[in-house]
Amino acid sequence: MSKPVDPVQLSADLIRCNSVTPAEGGALVLLEGLLTDAGFECTRVDREGIPNLFARWGAKGANRSFGFNGHTDVVPVGDADAWTHDPFGGEIKDGVLWGRGATDMKTGVAAFAAAAVDFVRQTPPDGAVILAITGDEEGDAEHGTTALLDWMAANNERMTHCLVGEPTCPNVMGEMMKIGRRGSMTCWFTATGVQGHSAYPHRAKNPLSALVRLLSRLEAQPLDAGTEHFDASTLAITTVDCGNPATNVIPARGHATVNIRFNDGHSGASLTEWLASHARAVEAETGVQIAMRVQISGESFLTPPGEFSDLIARAVEAETGRVPELSTSGGTSDARFIKNHCPVVEFGLVGKTMHQVDERIEIEQIEQLKAIYTRILTDYFA
Amino acid sequence: MSKPVDPVQLSADLIRCNSVTPAEGGALVLLEGLLTDAGFECTRVDREGIPNLFARWGAKGANRSFGFNGHTDVVPVGDADAWTHDPFGGEIKDGVLWGRGATDMKTGVAAFAAAAVDFVRQTPPDGAVILAITGDEEGDAEHGTTALLDWMAANNERMTHCLVGEPTCPNVMGEMMKIGRRGSMTCWFTATGVQGHSAYPHRAKNPLSALVRLLSRLEAQPLDAGTEHFDASTLAITTVDCGNPATNVIPARGHATVNIRFNDGHSGASLTEWLASHARAVEAETGVQIAMRVQISGESFLTPPGEFSDLIARAVEAETGRVPELSTSGGTSDARFIKNHCPVVEFGLVGKTMHQVDERIEIEQIEQLKAIYTRILTDYFA
Repeated sequence: MSKPVDPVQLSADLIRCNSVTPAEGGALVLLEGLLTDAGFECTRVDREGIPNLFARWGAKGANRSFGFNGHTDVVPVGDADAWTHDPFGGEIKDGVLWGRGATDMKTGVAAFAAAAVDFVRQTPPDGAVILAITGDEEGDAEHGTTALLDWMAANNERMTHCLVGEPTCPNVMGEMMKIGRRGSMTCWFTATGVQGHSAYPHRAKNPLSALVRLLSRLEAQPLDAGTEHFDASTLAITTVDCGNPATNVIPARGHATVNIRFNDGHSGASLTEWLASHARAVEAETGVQIAMRVQISGESFLTPPGEFSDLIARAVEAETGRVPELSTSGGTSDARFIKNHCPVVEFGLVGKTMHQVDERIEIEQIEQLKAIYTRILTDYFA
Repeated sequence: MSKPVDPVQLSADLIRCNSVTPAEGGALVLLEGLLTDAGFECTRVDREGIPNLFARWGAKGANRSFGFNGHTDVVPVGDADAWTHDPFGGEIKDGVLWGRGATDMKTGVAAFAAAAVDFVRQTPPDGAVILAITGDEEGDAEHGTTALLDWMAANNERMTHCLVGEPTCPNVMGEMMKIGRRGSMTCWFTATGVQGHSAYPHRAKNPLSALVRLLSRLEAQPLDAGTEHFDASTLAITTVDCGNPATNVIPARGHATVNIRFNDGHSGASLTEWLASHARAVEAETGVQIAMRVQISGESFLTPPGEFSDLIARAVEAETGRVPELSTSGGTSDARFIKNHCPVVEFGLVGKTMHQVDERIEIEQIEQLKAIYTRILTDYFA
């Protein structure tokens, strides 16, 4: 019988692969070797230069087919001189593993890969275990998990449920899992008026006054007070600029950007219409033209609490003693793509240092995470 | 008896002097020669490299001492290739004089110098005629007319009334004179909040939201509806900027500028307090710190309609057939300094092309302007 896979050692090995998006860095190759040895059927699903790995143990089209999703790419190091440990060293000291990806999320991938390998070796389930691992979650994500899902659809590969291993706990291991995410959209406004001398504002049409009016309207009321499973939607003004060097000249043009995180009370389309209606009203009031460009990064989604989330929560509680909060907070994740394929929830370790200098994690958390994922597999196929 | 001074020729000669602020360019030297020949006592009152000319005909401390004020410096040429005539050529074609300063205001200076010289030669008055001419009105104006007034105070030189020869007519010669000006001030706001991720606006303090709130308050109500002799005060937002490159980050800092033109219902101090009270209210509402820096370019002032303005208006009507409107509109002028010295009004030609490419004026207007100034002198000393 094979030795159990050490998730800490596997995490350190993955951190040593320099896989800043979109570089593969050897990370997927390493995982493919490990999974193939354990009897997984592996396929590289690269698209447009983005590396992705699909691995399945068990029969295609099984009635129960549990999927894990995660990514091996990492964000850049940032200020390299500020790191106290080599970001690609995978060093372990005093119970802490250091390096880029230590929380987001080479450890998560290592934990579910280790759990999956040991599980299928020790208690081969009546069903399939799938690992869908991408090399582009931190970048545009256009050819990452989306490419894996497209390929799966084209090849009749199917997960019945999926767990994303992103870090989900704000401060303490086990305190939070995600059953959905708010949607995210950005709107760029360009207001075009008529330039003029500041002594004669009635002869000009001030695009800045129009933007102030518009932004003021958008911030006048909260978008909502939250819904059953979601926090209140939020709107943030992130830029206002005109680049006018003269204080006695009303400029011809001004720009502003707002970013909206929205719950299931809205959609990208309904909010686009809401923004446009305010822009039109301000146009009518001021005579300033307001153009807008909208990018919807993701719609909100929810996997309603139920059997699946209960199963995850039970496993977390059994290993950590904590009942995880069912949250929909935070930014976007690849779960936004997977929700169109099957029920999806997210659970992982404490993400406090993600994207920061000196990203690191207690190795105890990695071991706990493997134990939780193992328990989930066991219960799922029980 | 000397030949009358031709104001058109003198205007052309002055245009040929390249006196873009702060260059003297020979303009004041030319005038000093002409005035000295006519019996004026001339003193160059240069300060900090800025050239200024003081000229008096008649006794110092006379009971009646009529002053003219103007400037020989001009704004830069701008797009030199776009000019259809040499901006420093002083060309006359089809009754039009072309060049930088043709309206603002070498023609005005030429008209009052010609009028003054001929007047003291032909009908020596019982009193004094003073010409206070600066070489820095278009620049910072820190050592221009102010330097002349400082020097006059130190040397017991005094004007009993003063006429500024700036262009005052919007479209038609004779239609408008100025009996005051609105005040002008600029306020720079810097809002400092707490940077944060746009997905969690409650964890940040958005300086842009604070600026939008503040600017919205400032524009919510007109400052006033105008006063007896003044248009309504105006406030214009001239800049809003943050320079934030990331649309998913709430920036730590934002900047905005407003420019206020105010009538005699306000003062720089009262408006500074008004701005500060709104800034403090928004600070209290948002927790964002708002720093402000105020520059008061000039307080509003008024020479109330009366004997002096009547005299000017009668002269304008006699020469042009038009009763000039007594206006306080427009930007600032050196009259804002002179009002502390003696009653001051402004009358000059049509300023339509001032500061523009192809600045030019009908020579008929220059001749009319000399005739008006001559009539004013005659009536003043009658």
